[in-house]
Amino acid sequence: MKKLNRGVAIVGTGMSRFGSFPEKTTRDLFVEAYQDMSASVDKGFDPNDVEAVYIGNFSSDLFEGQGHIAPIMADWVGLAPRAATRIEDACASSGVALRQGILAIASGAYDVVLVGGTEKMSNLPTAGVTDALATAGDMLFEIPAGFTFPGFYAAMATAYMKRYGASADALLQVGIKNHENGKFNPKAQFQASISDMMAGRIAKAQQRGLPVPTWQTEMDFMHDDKANPLIAWPLRLFDCSPVTDGASAVLLVGEELAKRFTDDPLYVIGSGQASDAAALHDRAELTSIRAAQVASRQAYEMAGVTPDDIKIAEVHDCFTIAEIIATEDLGFFAPGTGHEAAEEGLTSRYGLKPINTSGGLKSKGHPVGASGAAQAVEVWKQMRGSAGERQVDRDVDLAITHNVGGTGQTCVVHIYERR
Amino acid sequence: MKKLNRGVAIVGTGMSRFGSFPEKTTRDLFVEAYQDMSASVDKGFDPNDVEAVYIGNFSSDLFEGQGHIAPIMADWVGLAPRAATRIEDACASSGVALRQGILAIASGAYDVVLVGGTEKMSNLPTAGVTDALATAGDMLFEIPAGFTFPGFYAAMATAYMKRYGASADALLQVGIKNHENGKFNPKAQFQASISDMMAGRIAKAQQRGLPVPTWQTEMDFMHDDKANPLIAWPLRLFDCSPVTDGASAVLLVGEELAKRFTDDPLYVIGSGQASDAAALHDRAELTSIRAAQVASRQAYEMAGVTPDDIKIAEVHDCFTIAEIIATEDLGFFAPGTGHEAAEEGLTSRYGLKPINTSGGLKSKGHPVGASGAAQAVEVWKQMRGSAGERQVDRDVDLAITHNVGGTGQTCVVHIYERR
Repeated sequence: MKKLNRGVAIVGTGMSRFGSFPEKTTRDLFVEAYQDMSASVDKGFDPNDVEAVYIGNFSSDLFEGQGHIAPIMADWVGLAPRAATRIEDACASSGVALRQGILAIASGAYDVVLVGGTEKMSNLPTAGVTDALATAGDMLFEIPAGFTFPGFYAAMATAYMKRYGASADALLQVGIKNHENGKFNPKAQFQASISDMMAGRIAKAQQRGLPVPTWQTEMDFMHDDKANPLIAWPLRLFDCSPVTDGASAVLLVGEELAKRFTDDPLYVIGSGQASDAAALHDRAELTSIRAAQVASRQAYEMAGVTPDDIKIAEVHDCFTIAEIIATEDLGFFAPGTGHEAAEEGLTSRYGLKPINTSGGLKSKGHPVGASGAAQAVEVWKQMRGSAGERQVDRDVDLAITHNVGGTGQTCVVHIYERR
Repeated sequence: MKKLNRGVAIVGTGMSRFGSFPEKTTRDLFVEAYQDMSASVDKGFDPNDVEAVYIGNFSSDLFEGQGHIAPIMADWVGLAPRAATRIEDACASSGVALRQGILAIASGAYDVVLVGGTEKMSNLPTAGVTDALATAGDMLFEIPAGFTFPGFYAAMATAYMKRYGASADALLQVGIKNHENGKFNPKAQFQASISDMMAGRIAKAQQRGLPVPTWQTEMDFMHDDKANPLIAWPLRLFDCSPVTDGASAVLLVGEELAKRFTDDPLYVIGSGQASDAAALHDRAELTSIRAAQVASRQAYEMAGVTPDDIKIAEVHDCFTIAEIIATEDLGFFAPGTGHEAAEEGLTSRYGLKPINTSGGLKSKGHPVGASGAAQAVEVWKQMRGSAGERQVDRDVDLAITHNVGGTGQTCVVHIYERR
């Protein structure tokens, strides 16, 4: 990745509430995200300024029977006849859309670009969602062999545990931490810590006169096969991100124009993207994601910063093992030590390197095509000090986002600076 | 559309054979296109030069049950871990992918980009293809009302005929002309003129001792309800592009690097893209496509040329009426006169403005996600004088491509110069 021909800044971000909304369509969700973004532009948002729209979406085809959704999204917020382009790279779709928006501005083609992400997953029953998500794997060689995504990440988790002596508890710790963060995110699908959930279930059992659970600690709850059933060993329910409906939006402008929109923009100083073989069996190893290593190296080089310089990160925790591997691939912790960092609390809001202060995909929710751009929403809030109760306790001048498609067929990484 | 920060050139193009290939996958087809592209680079192609891959694809999700195909395509030709991005804008997917590749180079991010297009449609039965294609329309408001794509374009055709007094024969003339061109394209799905088909069927009837058709002219054949049945009035079978499997590939480089690859590159001097409302009933009119008008105006302005300057055009003739409207939207003929131009032969290989010398989508075939980039393949051949028996009889210094998604929700236009 060379230097871009023009700097790019973020001057507004927004997202819909994430969750399960049977009564809403993708159009409704995107309008909600767009309006939220509009309200975030400090000096006021004028739709006439927008010149192009990039929409990240994994599979409205399968989830809603609707292809060609980019022009629909553009029209639904009143932006036809602007160029409207859908980007699909599975769960990295809107992270890659963000990158395409950045490149489009750097090219000189546009000054102001709207990037969105959307996914409406709850239309399908859970098995249908699992099948739809499986199309992000290798449909010729992996899926016929019985793999689905929990299985893929379970394979990565067991390989990691075997190689580095990690425990399944380290994974569960990631889930506990992300729910602790999501508790304070008013847009999150689950706004409850594991302790909150325990208390709720105990209260409900007492009300109903049922046997009252005897959990003493959050880890007791996490070990309970009924409260937290096994999905694919070693992954339990709370190791897995949920099925989510949601949308996100980011407003990008040429760097030199940023102050017209806000006195406090974020500058995108690093961007990287890489790919890898579709099938896990074609990868050199299962305990890291090469595309993430390549993409983050590109982004760090472009930004001229190191992992140590980064204050917070939103990483792709579609499964808890993915977060641990991400913290290694991004260079925060040495290979094989990410699980220790998670257990030691280094990635909590108060730790050395706060990870997924938004609640992450685990607690905030994972509307797959919307997740990448939604990471930028959290970075926007934390860097500008508007993250409310989940605001980190330090000045965030540099942040990073890490968005993975599939099992690592795609990874896109961005680095943001507040000046 | 402003001027880009960097010029971009095409230094190689290729395509698979277009047709129906039950034994092939998208991977096979893309490898074929990639190898064809490799062979076209005059000074030799080195895969190590390629830095990123953009793949246009409409719906491998529905056609093959495979999402996330960009990294698979990149890996299958040996290009992992390069960034690999899928672009989806229905039938304009690879035209838009071409544009994203251009913007990516203009941004400074990359020097050399591979743009591909793919679609494997024949896996589904015809009704399944029709349903899959329908997802490019508005699935909430149009498809439940009974529309499919032949119906959409039939509505546009009847509106056009009513408004401008055009005959259904003018449409059929487009089909006759495009089959006359496709006859000489060795990659085309149908390499036969209407006369060839007539002769073939007459011979077959004679062999079998069946009643011999009494067609005297090609138009007799086109009017025959058995040979050319009505699909959606006024559109008959030979007004409609076929179901096709195929792939295409284009190699883009920064303008200043072009001579390293060939002494005879094409320069992309104009590019435009626009969108419109999903539903036909939300459009201002049915007799033109606003997105095509907006996109072509952008492209002409960027290139600093006029419609009169253009020597040949590849336009999106998914249905014959679409070609007639395209020749008006591109400014070749005044609104309402495109049908006369078609009837007068102005768009034949020997006419004032040769249109779809490749055979167009009608005869070359229409693997939807591959068609946009395949238009650049034809322009490459015609401009460099290597189009064989279908080569036009004049020097082609300027050419244009026009690629539509859906019924005009997307249009992308490019202008090419040979210096």
